[in-house]
Amino acid sequence: MSYRIEKDTMGEVKVPSDKYWGAQTERSRNNFKIGAPASMPLEVVYGFAYLKKAAAYTNHELGVLPKDKRDLIADVCDEILEGKHDDQFPLVIWQTGSGTQSNMNVNEVIANRAHELAGKRIGEGEKTIQPNDDVNKSQSSNDTFPTGMHIAAYKKIIEVTIPGVQQLRDSLAKKVNEFKDVVKIGRTHLMDATPLTLGQEFSGYVSQLDHGLKALKNTLPHMSELALGGTAVGTGLNTPEGYAVLVAKYIAEFSGLPFVTAENKFEALAAHDAIVESHGALKQLAVSLNKIANDIRMMASGPRSGIGEIIIPANEPGSSIMPGKVNPTQSEALTMVCAQVIGNDVAISVGGTQGHYELNVFKPMMAANILQSAQLLGDACVSFDVNCASGIEPNHETIKTLLNNSLMLVTALNTKIGYYKAAEIANTAHKNGTTLKEEAVNLGYVTPEEYDEWVKPEKMVGSLK
Amino acid sequence: MSYRIEKDTMGEVKVPSDKYWGAQTERSRNNFKIGAPASMPLEVVYGFAYLKKAAAYTNHELGVLPKDKRDLIADVCDEILEGKHDDQFPLVIWQTGSGTQSNMNVNEVIANRAHELAGKRIGEGEKTIQPNDDVNKSQSSNDTFPTGMHIAAYKKIIEVTIPGVQQLRDSLAKKVNEFKDVVKIGRTHLMDATPLTLGQEFSGYVSQLDHGLKALKNTLPHMSELALGGTAVGTGLNTPEGYAVLVAKYIAEFSGLPFVTAENKFEALAAHDAIVESHGALKQLAVSLNKIANDIRMMASGPRSGIGEIIIPANEPGSSIMPGKVNPTQSEALTMVCAQVIGNDVAISVGGTQGHYELNVFKPMMAANILQSAQLLGDACVSFDVNCASGIEPNHETIKTLLNNSLMLVTALNTKIGYYKAAEIANTAHKNGTTLKEEAVNLGYVTPEEYDEWVKPEKMVGSLK
Amino acid sequence: MSYRIEKDTMGEVKVPSDKYWGAQTERSRNNFKIGAPASMPLEVVYGFAYLKKAAAYTNHELGVLPKDKRDLIADVCDEILEGKHDDQFPLVIWQTGSGTQSNMNVNEVIANRAHELAGKRIGEGEKTIQPNDDVNKSQSSNDTFPTGMHIAAYKKIIEVTIPGVQQLRDSLAKKVNEFKDVVKIGRTHLMDATPLTLGQEFSGYVSQLDHGLKALKNTLPHMSELALGGTAVGTGLNTPEGYAVLVAKYIAEFSGLPFVTAENKFEALAAHDAIVESHGALKQLAVSLNKIANDIRMMASGPRSGIGEIIIPANEPGSSIMPGKVNPTQSEALTMVCAQVIGNDVAISVGGTQGHYELNVFKPMMAANILQSAQLLGDACVSFDVNCASGIEPNHETIKTLLNNSLMLVTALNTKIGYYKAAEIANTAHKNGTTLKEEAVNLGYVTPEEYDEWVKPEKMVGSLK
Amino acid sequence: MSYRIEKDTMGEVKVPSDKYWGAQTERSRNNFKIGAPASMPLEVVYGFAYLKKAAAYTNHELGVLPKDKRDLIADVCDEILEGKHDDQFPLVIWQTGSGTQSNMNVNEVIANRAHELAGKRIGEGEKTIQPNDDVNKSQSSNDTFPTGMHIAAYKKIIEVTIPGVQQLRDSLAKKVNEFKDVVKIGRTHLMDATPLTLGQEFSGYVSQLDHGLKALKNTLPHMSELALGGTAVGTGLNTPEGYAVLVAKYIAEFSGLPFVTAENKFEALAAHDAIVESHGALKQLAVSLNKIANDIRMMASGPRSGIGEIIIPANEPGSSIMPGKVNPTQSEALTMVCAQVIGNDVAISVGGTQGHYELNVFKPMMAANILQSAQLLGDACVSFDVNCASGIEPNHETIKTLLNNSLMLVTALNTKIGYYKAAEIANTAHKNGTTLKEEAVNLGYVTPEEYDEWVKPEKMVGSLK
Repeated sequence: MSYRIEKDTMGEVKVPSDKYWGAQTERSRNNFKIGAPASMPLEVVYGFAYLKKAAAYTNHELGVLPKDKRDLIADVCDEILEGKHDDQFPLVIWQTGSGTQSNMNVNEVIANRAHELAGKRIGEGEKTIQPNDDVNKSQSSNDTFPTGMHIAAYKKIIEVTIPGVQQLRDSLAKKVNEFKDVVKIGRTHLMDATPLTLGQEFSGYVSQLDHGLKALKNTLPHMSELALGGTAVGTGLNTPEGYAVLVAKYIAEFSGLPFVTAENKFEALAAHDAIVESHGALKQLAVSLNKIANDIRMMASGPRSGIGEIIIPANEPGSSIMPGKVNPTQSEALTMVCAQVIGNDVAISVGGTQGHYELNVFKPMMAANILQSAQLLGDACVSFDVNCASGIEPNHETIKTLLNNSLMLVTALNTKIGYYKAAEIANTAHKNGTTLKEEAVNLGYVTPEEYDEWVKPEKMVGSLK
Repeated sequence: MSYRIEKDTMGEVKVPSDKYWGAQTERSRNNFKIGAPASMPLEVVYGFAYLKKAAAYTNHELGVLPKDKRDLIADVCDEILEGKHDDQFPLVIWQTGSGTQSNMNVNEVIANRAHELAGKRIGEGEKTIQPNDDVNKSQSSNDTFPTGMHIAAYKKIIEVTIPGVQQLRDSLAKKVNEFKDVVKIGRTHLMDATPLTLGQEFSGYVSQLDHGLKALKNTLPHMSELALGGTAVGTGLNTPEGYAVLVAKYIAEFSGLPFVTAENKFEALAAHDAIVESHGALKQLAVSLNKIANDIRMMASGPRSGIGEIIIPANEPGSSIMPGKVNPTQSEALTMVCAQVIGNDVAISVGGTQGHYELNVFKPMMAANILQSAQLLGDACVSFDVNCASGIEPNHETIKTLLNNSLMLVTALNTKIGYYKAAEIANTAHKNGTTLKEEAVNLGYVTPEEYDEWVKPEKMVGSLK
Repeated sequence: MSYRIEKDTMGEVKVPSDKYWGAQTERSRNNFKIGAPASMPLEVVYGFAYLKKAAAYTNHELGVLPKDKRDLIADVCDEILEGKHDDQFPLVIWQTGSGTQSNMNVNEVIANRAHELAGKRIGEGEKTIQPNDDVNKSQSSNDTFPTGMHIAAYKKIIEVTIPGVQQLRDSLAKKVNEFKDVVKIGRTHLMDATPLTLGQEFSGYVSQLDHGLKALKNTLPHMSELALGGTAVGTGLNTPEGYAVLVAKYIAEFSGLPFVTAENKFEALAAHDAIVESHGALKQLAVSLNKIANDIRMMASGPRSGIGEIIIPANEPGSSIMPGKVNPTQSEALTMVCAQVIGNDVAISVGGTQGHYELNVFKPMMAANILQSAQLLGDACVSFDVNCASGIEPNHETIKTLLNNSLMLVTALNTKIGYYKAAEIANTAHKNGTTLKEEAVNLGYVTPEEYDEWVKPEKMVGSLK
Repeated sequence: MSYRIEKDTMGEVKVPSDKYWGAQTERSRNNFKIGAPASMPLEVVYGFAYLKKAAAYTNHELGVLPKDKRDLIADVCDEILEGKHDDQFPLVIWQTGSGTQSNMNVNEVIANRAHELAGKRIGEGEKTIQPNDDVNKSQSSNDTFPTGMHIAAYKKIIEVTIPGVQQLRDSLAKKVNEFKDVVKIGRTHLMDATPLTLGQEFSGYVSQLDHGLKALKNTLPHMSELALGGTAVGTGLNTPEGYAVLVAKYIAEFSGLPFVTAENKFEALAAHDAIVESHGALKQLAVSLNKIANDIRMMASGPRSGIGEIIIPANEPGSSIMPGKVNPTQSEALTMVCAQVIGNDVAISVGGTQGHYELNVFKPMMAANILQSAQLLGDACVSFDVNCASGIEPNHETIKTLLNNSLMLVTALNTKIGYYKAAEIANTAHKNGTTLKEEAVNLGYVTPEEYDEWVKPEKMVGSLK
């Protein structure tokens, strides 16, 4: 393997000659051999690309960076955003908690690649663009990393999570309509209860996701606040007048997302409550989705010795030993994702609590967790929708049988004969293994005609239609 | 001890004769000996009192309950809300997960006390008011308990949490102004960094709490949705036309809070995402407050061998063995509360995930946790404010000494001589134990006059003022 | 209300004249109005009573406390342990994180009550026994509080948790035997699978609890290590030679539990990993119990439109609106407890991570959480056992019907005709709504005689008997 | 891209022709597009390789698999273990919760590669080895996946976690000895307290890790229990007599680790408490390590305006904006890992609670989390050791200054003049900004000679040496 020499303020370092990164990246590779290499999410790197380009434009506009440097920096940023340099970011999540080394990784790659774009050879001559003085101008890791992670998380939520959840929500809403006349037994405490329609049941799921999406969107304004312009400790030292507002405007323009400069830069560096807040909403969605996925697999259970009220698509052989078995595998994938998100929420809370003075140093961990949760929830909703929810069909026969068996239809008699007599009817039928009607009549509380008139499952679901 | 006989649909039960409760409460007392007695929060009972009174008014207005019964029920509810019957609710959190037995506890107490108010003796004659058919009319545990817990949690957040956090936030905001000219060293990674003012530091705390309060308020619309009117499974079986909307209106009127009927009753019974959502915001506040309380105790540490930049009130002797010791006890109480809230959040998430079909049966546990978190956060913020935050004073001498020692003032030279030379100055001073100015001049990078002109801490904090 | 004057190193404080506590307790009452009063668990107070008595004996034996003082202190400790002074400990969990004020509360109560026992009036004359110099001799809050909480937690685990879990485990083990011949359908992914016996199913629960009990017992040696003797920072300053070992011996003698002095006192003050460790095992039990309780309610679901394979005791009317309803309420109470314990585990972890230097100041919170978890788990297991598990009966008819319906009996043919042909049989039967035997014969893969010979559910459960 | 046709019981599927996997793997690739591809940890695949080989040997020995098939299967397993087929396992964690598809992925790769080893071309002719009937013989996903994950987790803990933690523990133990005479100020509540040695402080860390390692090792017997032999539901259907014990023996032999067959196979499929248990111990280590890493960065804070009692290695430039800055980056990486592990613990608990009947379907998620935690903790300890802990040096000058400033040296006077007078001395010195000695003499409580005799820091640390 061939190397070149790169330098930083601590001295010389040997770097693989085919890589754009420099001394600090290489030091970090050696000093943090923790978990799989290159675990720092590329989304964060792309977030950096947006902000480095925006900073170059802002620095130029405010008179502290020449146009040619601006353009070189911007060109490399565009290449990064096109995915051309994905293999130039070898660092791990588990580095310094400010993400300084990932910031420097980006600075170094931009500087060396810009040198090339300027027609020179890496490692030869004075760098055309300096990593610290040019690429990082008017910046600090302390404001760039949180900016990069807000950009990454915001984008992921907007592009993956919300559309994914919305797609599932819309499929479920379609089912609400399709199933609006399918009267079935309700279950509370897992026990037989009064009837409702399958459509009503699904409407609860839709309502959960609507509330969850609203909650998630409520968190976005906080996430749209960018730390950039705070530099080292939030005071904006070494930034030109007007920098913070303008750089956020450029980031918004380049990314197409409504980013603004954070009102308070001290919070923006020292605390990541915006991540805590948005992830809290992701966790709420996970809680909701776990309930939904679980209900669906319970209702689909069987096919012969379970509940069996709905039929879900058979996508793959379910068992390596039991021939012909079909399983609710999409519910399983989704609920595993939910468990992960609930765990990630705790990791983020623990990281969020431990900011010290002017800096929270759990940034990369928090970024990685929210990106994972946002991706997994969005993907899993789409997968669940495409491979399960959109194909759900009622098993009308089973639904009818289970409905008519239920002793809880007796509840319709409460307003006619009172709770106590109604209970007596149900208890007697349960004890004797008979029907409600038989016992209702035997006990002399109603006539057969009254029973038929009063106990109509399809009339018991109507009040809230 | 003397007893009377009470009955329910399962038969007779002996109940202490001096208590208003009936058979089902007594069964629950015997069947759920888990933890301390009477752990079900009284706030939930009061929530029930609001809703039982509202239901009585609504039932009467809609023609299904006579006026005299309405008034008897309402009178007992008022007595409960006045705290006159606090000893009549002996049940525990760890009962049935629908809270059915607490609903019946309220129904039974109202029925028996109403019998007395009607001039009769408990246990003698037909009950004037029936627990199920009258007090519980148009209701089910499944819609009353979630209604009661929403009322309780909403009230607690409005009356305790938000005012408490706001009070602390306002004190901190006052400090922002008081401390606006106190220039001090910044710290990132716990290490010396560039300066900021103590006021700026506190402004970050204010911003955190502002965001947290906003996040909490964002959750209230979901919490304001009441399940009542859904009855057993969400369909509203056995409720008169117009009941759900009207009963919410009465609850809003009686409680003075903006409650509305839940748009979707199936969600409102089967999932408690509103609790998950609001508690998520409480957890976010806990994360923020942990950071704030921790910073304050670190800055106050010493008095002689710590950081010692601020002085906090000495409220009590700090040690049973070390004479004269004073400790940051309010920070400790507050951070313990934060840890509890973060734990409670997981309990609520776990409960929230496990709703089945038409009912989530983790209701009492979820209610107890959100009430505890909301109370503790509000109380702890007030305690922290009164006994600590409002009395914080800067230790000007220490602040000045630590500021002037800092090598990171060198950062001001970046834009003059570049990052690399500035680093050389700092490293040399660090190695030699000298001052920045000495080395800056020795190395020939600046003149003494330039140094004095360029490196002024009070000018390094200004950009974001 | 009448008051007397008490003093501490900060000055005078008015204390209710009918209370034994002194100045520092009163200060804490005023300074920490957080949550319900007197929330500090009495178990911790009792832990203090053991250790204060042991310290008095040790101090006397080592020549630093006269016999009459020893005996006065010991007498009050005995009274405390008899529950005679439960109303003398008004402090909250949310105080200083070292529990200093609860230590002083105990010191003050002992001193004042001892004064009385010595025949004097509280508040008159020099205190016979000094709270700091006598009761707290050779001690610090920093070593007494962790000692008190280890005593309390150890006792609770030994006296409540383990016996409770064991009782449930033994009932389930009895069921293993009772149900050993009840062949039923197995379910994987909630879907029909190959058969097993109900006894085998329950044997899994027993095995889970056996492993859980073993895991819990594995943690007790760490919990048996006592901090006492470390005093302020772990060095044992101001203790006589031999004190640490001897005081642990006395505590062991007085409590009847195998306590020893901690090998390393610095850990014992600065970290509470023993609490983290034992609570981790409680959390494991919660995870196991949630699975068990959940299975049981699913198997008991119905009675007519669920799974209905087992019958659980009907302990109370299940619904305030649905007459005759019976619910798996014990499963619900138990799973709510499990959710709480899982949440408490996080609170404890968060507290455990944040020790600083020589002291962890999340002690009262950690103590309160482990005591709650240990109590709730033990109580809930007993309640679940008495009111549910011990009364479980198989519903033989339903079990038989569901077993015979199952298509997964086809798995028995794998070793005869191969997985692919077996799958074809199952799929065809599923599609046609026919029986396995019909399709097996129709497809020509087996003769009717072979089918009857090979597919015998009762033979499919035997391999592991 | 070129494809071949593969078949399963559901029909034909196109598979990339350069891959060994078959129909079910390909279905899973298409049905579960959740998160990054190939996220299923390779360690689990290797676990499968051990068990497939062991099953082949066992099946042969028990007479149900011919020797040539055994050897073909074993040869492919060996290749997998050599890492030759790492690119043949494209599936994700978020698949079916039994891991069926990863089991089939392994079965299919072995079958197709064995076909090649047998001298044939994939996709041509009858498969020499059948994925279900041969590779999966006497197995089910339900017993293979948990076996694979136990093998993977056990190995990771033994090979990475324990050695990593032990290495750090040993370095810290070396420091205990090196620092045994460095007397420094103690701190409780972050406030100045009585002295101890730096060695004593580090001995607390060693003790924490010793306890943590012991706790982790306590969990290994449970983890050593293997599910294999339980097949579909735990009964061992379709396994030859003696299979379970023998296959565990082979796995132990091939892996060199003390695996045994699980005593109860029903638990081993339906619950993963062994994962919960071992991860609980990993979480305990995370709690301990967070405390240690945090202490070290606080003690190293400064260099001029912090605590500055120790000096940690400077491994990289600490700031992209502040020249010459050095940060405690290893503490940051380690504490981020700790936060992740605490979060993963919740994910595992949530997964563990939700087993249903005969199967827990959160297996891949649980496996992935424990493997991540075990790897990260081990790696981070090594990184922390090599790059930080082993290079820690005391800053003797600062230590001495801070020690001598402390007012808490007054505690040594308690046993001479009592707590109250000692407090008066400390309070007066604090108020006047004077020394303890001055005020002790001024107040007339001690002579200068007594003071010098009694207040000797180096004598205050000795009791527990």
